[in-house]
Amino acid sequence: MKINFLTLFPEMFEGVTNSSIWKQARDKGAVDYTVTDFRAYSDNKHNKVDDYPYGGGAGMVLRAQPIVDAVEDVRGGGDARVVMLCPQGTPFSQQKAGELAKEEALILVCGHYEGYDERIRSVVTDEISIGDYVLTGGELPAMIIADSVIRLLPGVLGNESSAQEESFTDGLLEHPHYTRPADFRGMDVPEVLLSGNHAHIEEWRRKESLRRTWERRPDLLEARELDDDEREWLRKFENE
Amino acid sequence: MKINFLTLFPEMFEGVTNSSIWKQARDKGAVDYTVTDFRAYSDNKHNKVDDYPYGGGAGMVLRAQPIVDAVEDVRGGGDARVVMLCPQGTPFSQQKAGELAKEEALILVCGHYEGYDERIRSVVTDEISIGDYVLTGGELPAMIIADSVIRLLPGVLGNESSAQEESFTDGLLEHPHYTRPADFRGMDVPEVLLSGNHAHIEEWRRKESLRRTWERRPDLLEARELDDDEREWLRKFENE
Repeated sequence: MKINFLTLFPEMFEGVTNSSIWKQARDKGAVDYTVTDFRAYSDNKHNKVDDYPYGGGAGMVLRAQPIVDAVEDVRGGGDARVVMLCPQGTPFSQQKAGELAKEEALILVCGHYEGYDERIRSVVTDEISIGDYVLTGGELPAMIIADSVIRLLPGVLGNESSAQEESFTDGLLEHPHYTRPADFRGMDVPEVLLSGNHAHIEEWRRKESLRRTWERRPDLLEARELDDDEREWLRKFENE
Repeated sequence: MKINFLTLFPEMFEGVTNSSIWKQARDKGAVDYTVTDFRAYSDNKHNKVDDYPYGGGAGMVLRAQPIVDAVEDVRGGGDARVVMLCPQGTPFSQQKAGELAKEEALILVCGHYEGYDERIRSVVTDEISIGDYVLTGGELPAMIIADSVIRLLPGVLGNESSAQEESFTDGLLEHPHYTRPADFRGMDVPEVLLSGNHAHIEEWRRKESLRRTWERRPDLLEARELDDDEREWLRKFENE
């Protein structure tokens, strides 16, 4: 996969594209990154990329020309998916990550300032928001999307992480984890985890996963069918 | 404000902490960043930070000792808010960003691998998730949180962006923006925006803001009281 970032702040990407999974995925040949400063595409003699909004008001608006020209140049003759990061976009989800991971090329358009000239949307295939909070630009959201996509590419992660995936798509939060020592500053590991009884361990984990979801994210339970065990455990939690 | 990142991948932060608003905010003295590799705190002779989970299963678990010791050292005698990035956390929101922006110090704990040893939570004040999607680690989510907080610190942004804030807290998506030229590749600017009639412009913007929210994020409308104009517009959209 080829991931292209269009941005006014290319230096923001240096540390991330050369670290951890991002570096490993590139070294394995699963993905390649390009970071393009779309200011270089401006036809304005001062390379301006923003201008005042028609109709007045505070803030600046990103001009259509530099971004549209940059998208068309980077896309070449191909059919890359063009994702614009913006607060008005579709909320990002694991399902969307899976969909994007099937593409051969992604162009991620990172805005700054008040907003995008509406006509930029003519070259965009997807608008995505990573959440309902205000950020200074689209660079970090673009990295979030790329990160979630890279880890799904074939060969990037081992089997261990596939298991994690399944846990997530199960619709519940993860159960608590413990590793050595058994006693850390007087805080013990639950006995069942030391018992070696795999059926009991499995049951404890399912129950604690449900408990955590019930305590912290009851909204997730509404979107999910419960089995008989789970309904019984929920009744117990409610009576505790 | 002092923002401390605890991570195994300090190099991921270099580009971001030295760019754009992050750099400006530090240059203005509004914020300072430290990035601490918590591997350096491991009491293991190989500086191991993870280990196998009690009870078996795939994946590794971050050990309590290195992170707890790092948090205590970085916090010193102070009362920094300690935020752990994890999928089991409270969903991040603009309200939470405002709350964190009032603190004098934040410690953002970025995990990797399967999960955190449960006892790490004993030194944590907040657990936050930035959204229901799977990422390779907590570093990018920590940057998202810091970015949303930094822009709220006094003196970091000008008045222009405060206006944007109000727009967001209004509970609707933004109306479309346009800047020069009036004709871009045959795509025109809506005439009302060129009219100079400020009352009409204001009305058009309110209406298009509502339309966009209705089309893309009807969930936001459910959480919001509508005025008479808005109810009338919604009826019109539904009949179009």
